[in-house]
Amino acid sequence: MMDTHDFVGRFSGIYEHSPWVAEQVAPLASAGDGMNILAALMADCVDNASTEKQLALIRAHPDLAGKAQLAGELTEESTSEQASAGLDQCSAEEYERFQALNTAYLEKFGFPFVMAVRDSDRAAIIDAFAARLDNDFATEFETALVEIHKIARLRLESMGETA
Amino acid sequence: MMDTHDFVGRFSGIYEHSPWVAEQVAPLASAGDGMNILAALMADCVDNASTEKQLALIRAHPDLAGKAQLAGELTEESTSEQASAGLDQCSAEEYERFQALNTAYLEKFGFPFVMAVRDSDRAAIIDAFAARLDNDFATEFETALVEIHKIARLRLESMGETA
Repeated sequence: MMDTHDFVGRFSGIYEHSPWVAEQVAPLASAGDGMNILAALMADCVDNASTEKQLALIRAHPDLAGKAQLAGELTEESTSEQASAGLDQCSAEEYERFQALNTAYLEKFGFPFVMAVRDSDRAAIIDAFAARLDNDFATEFETALVEIHKIARLRLESMGETA
Repeated sequence: MMDTHDFVGRFSGIYEHSPWVAEQVAPLASAGDGMNILAALMADCVDNASTEKQLALIRAHPDLAGKAQLAGELTEESTSEQASAGLDQCSAEEYERFQALNTAYLEKFGFPFVMAVRDSDRAAIIDAFAARLDNDFATEFETALVEIHKIARLRLESMGETA
């Protein structure tokens, strides 16, 4: 991991007398290795996409401890993530709680609750879920994208490809 | 080096049900290793810069076999590039030819002739120079940027950092 200042020092001469090129890519590239750059590139792509595309991306996510999970219809990645947080082992009461939260959240925001849950646990997720339900649309829209970037980075890491 | 199709196949699941993210970054990222991605990022940064910034970048380049080279005032990188093409060993006649071409080119386009000359030779450069003098402004502006990207990539390679 190279810091921005070192990065600019090292690569400022790549474009003749034009250190602004190195300065501008430093936040993306100073992560150092290829797969961290890949995570940054993909996040950038999403952040620069239209609001419609971002909304479709958020909506592509399954409910936590929802019907698709119970039915075994999640993607391989989501199955593993929800299981790592114990969401495949909800008590009847916890399952009811998740359904109530999922319904209330979807009704309020028009998209499902998205949270990077890998290695979290049911109680912590329920607390965060209830708290986020109080936010406004703009905050939750942004938060969903931040969580989606976390999920993406964890997926890349689990491919063994980021530091 | 991974091709675009393999890249998308490998990374399409990083963003849930949203392969367009992998598809969109593939041209940048499928180069595979970090430093090729860096070359692509830097090139992208220049290509997306304002015309004014691009023009300033082109103008930041020294003449080939010009006064700055004779005076030893080039950047380390340019010194090495011009020397590798033998531009530090021009005959009096070749030197005169370069000055005439440099003057004519600058007069016509308002910026210096830019060419990635590493490992080329004086005769080939003079031929290319004379031929490009016939182009129009838009063509030479674009060509200069293409050559500048080649120079950048060669500089990164000479740092031992691209494949």
